[in-house]
Amino acid sequence: MAERKPIKQYLMIPGPTPIPTRILAAMNHEMIGHRGPGFSKILGEVIDGLKWAYQTKNDIMVYPCSGTGGMETAVVNVLSAGDKTLHVNIGNFGDRWIKIAKTYGVDVTDLKIERGKACDPKVLEAELAKDKNKEFKAVFMQQNETSTGVINDVKALAEVVHKSHPDALVVVDAVSGLLAADLKTDDWGLDVVCSGSQKAFMVPPGIAAVSMSAKAWKAYEKSTLPKHYWDIKNQKKFADKGQTYTTPPESIVFGMHEAIKIIKEEGLENIFKRHENNKDIVRNAMKAIGCKLLADDECASPAVTAIFPPDGVDAEKVRSEIRNRFGVELAPGQGDLKGKLFRIGHLGYVDKLELVATIGALELLFNQLGAKVEIGKGVKVALETI
Amino acid sequence: MAERKPIKQYLMIPGPTPIPTRILAAMNHEMIGHRGPGFSKILGEVIDGLKWAYQTKNDIMVYPCSGTGGMETAVVNVLSAGDKTLHVNIGNFGDRWIKIAKTYGVDVTDLKIERGKACDPKVLEAELAKDKNKEFKAVFMQQNETSTGVINDVKALAEVVHKSHPDALVVVDAVSGLLAADLKTDDWGLDVVCSGSQKAFMVPPGIAAVSMSAKAWKAYEKSTLPKHYWDIKNQKKFADKGQTYTTPPESIVFGMHEAIKIIKEEGLENIFKRHENNKDIVRNAMKAIGCKLLADDECASPAVTAIFPPDGVDAEKVRSEIRNRFGVELAPGQGDLKGKLFRIGHLGYVDKLELVATIGALELLFNQLGAKVEIGKGVKVALETI
Repeated sequence: MAERKPIKQYLMIPGPTPIPTRILAAMNHEMIGHRGPGFSKILGEVIDGLKWAYQTKNDIMVYPCSGTGGMETAVVNVLSAGDKTLHVNIGNFGDRWIKIAKTYGVDVTDLKIERGKACDPKVLEAELAKDKNKEFKAVFMQQNETSTGVINDVKALAEVVHKSHPDALVVVDAVSGLLAADLKTDDWGLDVVCSGSQKAFMVPPGIAAVSMSAKAWKAYEKSTLPKHYWDIKNQKKFADKGQTYTTPPESIVFGMHEAIKIIKEEGLENIFKRHENNKDIVRNAMKAIGCKLLADDECASPAVTAIFPPDGVDAEKVRSEIRNRFGVELAPGQGDLKGKLFRIGHLGYVDKLELVATIGALELLFNQLGAKVEIGKGVKVALETI
Repeated sequence: MAERKPIKQYLMIPGPTPIPTRILAAMNHEMIGHRGPGFSKILGEVIDGLKWAYQTKNDIMVYPCSGTGGMETAVVNVLSAGDKTLHVNIGNFGDRWIKIAKTYGVDVTDLKIERGKACDPKVLEAELAKDKNKEFKAVFMQQNETSTGVINDVKALAEVVHKSHPDALVVVDAVSGLLAADLKTDDWGLDVVCSGSQKAFMVPPGIAAVSMSAKAWKAYEKSTLPKHYWDIKNQKKFADKGQTYTTPPESIVFGMHEAIKIIKEEGLENIFKRHENNKDIVRNAMKAIGCKLLADDECASPAVTAIFPPDGVDAEKVRSEIRNRFGVELAPGQGDLKGKLFRIGHLGYVDKLELVATIGALELLFNQLGAKVEIGKGVKVALETI
């Protein structure tokens, strides 16, 4: 039989993730007054749920924007022009945060780590030790770096900062990492943490959330960077009334409201384990068929895996062919890695059997694109890893 | 029979407006790769539709944010700190734009107009004449001021600017005005125009659109205000590939895609007439029952009407009672007008018969709150105005 055209889509990018029908249904909701009591109740419950997911008692604000907006919010609310910051930079989103900070005149030190590696806490320790006058006001880091599929040991990195620079803020981009892996905002002393609706929350993009510790609020009072839309104190004034400063993307808030119920039903530990298992399925299978992975096992992301295709197979060809023939949407390499690798997103509403199926499709494709791969070998390993 | 509790909501605020089920249904859509060809096609069609609605060939960029984000985008992309601007300020959103500009160190002249009035082009002409060295880089104005229910004559105001200050940019907040009233971006020479999904487009909040004329792009090249998230040249780089810089709120884009079809089916002239008629229904009826209106007839907004309740009746009491007893959601007074008046939003997906029903509910309520109003008098006038 001739190969049939795909009738279904398998969205395997590191966000937006597929959306559960329960969440889509919750979003299919009429608009209500965003300054009225009905909306306040829903928004309050969303923020309580975010606090549960962040494992924090800190304030959390919700902004109408993408994850990058959350990253900009983190910069402009705690810094002033000329402030010195250290940026743990393990990939494209590390680069982006540096670019944002420099845009506002922050004096950035770029602790650039080889792509595909996490930041070794000892490397951070050594870098901080060079700053003898303790001038760094904040240390920025990604929990999970989407472009490379690498997860940082935020707990260990934060400890190093606290020990070396007790006055510095720890600022974490948890956009693609939150819920995919453990993040204890309060226990680990994380001052500012940003996240996005479209990742492991399984909700469409449109909302970023940003948490602020008491220490971060103190830094706010000294911060002179210009801010209006991102001004978090202004946002808090409205949050205290159960509102957002500007008109909230209500549909996304309704989606988050349902998402909070779903993730609470599953429980944090189970969510972390599910993502961990997704990672193992993909990595074990891809290794079995001889593909090189960008990230080492010890820093491999539970949210996304960056994979080099077999020798002689073009990564972008893999992406276009698997889309056209199997309906599987994979992510490209980013920055310097564009064209060299593809990425499988396995966070949020991505199921283990969908990963098995994707691996099967890749086995077929690799062969048809000229690489010799034993059909079923990766699939078997994937199944055995479940 | 005892009065029954409401089982339906009538959302009569000036955005978000009610959403047609066709748009809700379109939004009830799985996520797709936002860097893939399928999404690019949809986004391209949305931008083409926006150009149709703006009556422009200028570039239009789409941002994940609320309308205020669009206003901030307009400021940071064409100005530098110390630049002189003139702000036609007819209400709360005029105040907000001034606050944004000042946040970034812009040297603002506040042309504050009495609340409830539009800016007389002669007043603008006189103000511009004071600037003998033609130092104003831009003139900012609201098309429609949501807080007072007043519409400016943007065509006439722009003409005055072009004549007096041919080098100055005309920057227009059309968030609540676009589609509710005519706005000819190209014919009137409007350099930057911002809008939002949640107004007359009848889509939930989550997207702002910003247009840029060739003159505005030239101003961009000289602008040194710090910008990353709002950087419109960066946004354009992605727009040229059919993408947005950061992850787009896909659901809202799907909603806009359907909205464009709906508004094209109705046609611009019919949409303007519908809003004009909505305005007349509300104003004629409220006048008939003796309510004072904030805005004069000649500058009355087709999108929202600000109404003083009868003497002795508390505006906030009207809002809470009409919500609890009739399911009608009205907007409060904003700023200095809080508590003094209420506003009926009649833009977007608000039907004439819903306005008639709302007027009936107000007649009942006013009587029960102590004012003597002939039941049915306003309703009759409303029906005769249709």
